[in-house]
Amino acid sequence: MTIARRGLFISVEGADGSGKSTQARRLAEHLRTRGHVVVETREPGGGGEGAMAIRQLLLNGPPERWTPAAEALMMYAARAEHLAKLIRPALFDGKTVITDRFADSTMAYQGIAGGFGATAVAALHAVIVGKDDPDLTLVLDVPADIGLKRAGARRGGESRFEDKGPAFQRAVRDAFLAIARAAPARCKVIDASADEETVWRAVAKAVDGALQSRL
Amino acid sequence: MTIARRGLFISVEGADGSGKSTQARRLAEHLRTRGHVVVETREPGGGGEGAMAIRQLLLNGPPERWTPAAEALMMYAARAEHLAKLIRPALFDGKTVITDRFADSTMAYQGIAGGFGATAVAALHAVIVGKDDPDLTLVLDVPADIGLKRAGARRGGESRFEDKGPAFQRAVRDAFLAIARAAPARCKVIDASADEETVWRAVAKAVDGALQSRL
Repeated sequence: MTIARRGLFISVEGADGSGKSTQARRLAEHLRTRGHVVVETREPGGGGEGAMAIRQLLLNGPPERWTPAAEALMMYAARAEHLAKLIRPALFDGKTVITDRFADSTMAYQGIAGGFGATAVAALHAVIVGKDDPDLTLVLDVPADIGLKRAGARRGGESRFEDKGPAFQRAVRDAFLAIARAAPARCKVIDASADEETVWRAVAKAVDGALQSRL
Repeated sequence: MTIARRGLFISVEGADGSGKSTQARRLAEHLRTRGHVVVETREPGGGGEGAMAIRQLLLNGPPERWTPAAEALMMYAARAEHLAKLIRPALFDGKTVITDRFADSTMAYQGIAGGFGATAVAALHAVIVGKDDPDLTLVLDVPADIGLKRAGARRGGESRFEDKGPAFQRAVRDAFLAIARAAPARCKVIDASADEETVWRAVAKAVDGALQSRL
């Protein structure tokens, strides 16, 4: 008799324009070649129609459209849908889940940079995520000016958070670094200011190291 | 020198079809004749464009559209907007705020009847509402079959919660009664199965009594 093993849960985090989506996609391909059945997803919006509707409300409109409290609650509402309808079932089936953003983004954007408060976000986290934290979180770190320049180059709507400006983006970057320092076993900080290939080699090394220590 | 006094905050609660909106409107008129500057509002949706967008997501679509967790978080997101943009400023100005539904509805519908859990809702409440609970809550109590019949008679969309059926509505009614028992100083239960005039006399008596003990 074998005991079913929960799949691997990886989140990719970082400020806007840090290259998360590109690296998450490469990581999915990499793990597939190693035999993982990989589910690629993202936040906010992953997990179905309800979560996507919340994404539309959050990422569009003027920067001051929502209070940080409402933003954090809606992010966790989308996350509750994501966990219930996609992440938990996939992990239960033994699949590897890679998500482009997860709870650390809410802590960074709303909790710390947005002023809702780290304690308030931690309270939401305990209620909604509980023990289902990622096994591994890659924090892609770039200076705010590089990130905003990259994000601006691909701009096509959904820019509400970029529109909050460079001081906000700097606060977000610092927040991610603080989160990573507080959870060193889960979070690996990757210098994402270099070109895609260099960043990818750092990502692959961090993931392979984490996988080896898990096996 | 006088110290500005915080306005009076009244919520009207109850299951669908309990007559909340009608009684809230009569109560507003009653208090205006007694010199109050009254702000009439409702949940979800009071407090501006963001809260209204959340209302649309919550009250439309099939009954199983959202997990109870996501529902509760979105209700509190709309409530955070409501508090920040309407309720707290009005109370600060010394106005009387009457809201058709407030936090007890989330405890009843999502926390208790919906299965998200009373403890989880209480955690959200502490973060978002804090000490800003209503001074007085009128719980309009009707048997579920009467409530659903009345709600059905005026049906015109926004029926997602009525669509959850009579067993759910019975659980909601029981939940409101349990909430009222747990907070007897704040909550007055009104038998709302009678005709509008009879219910109104009971509402007026409860409110005048509460006002007198407050002065």
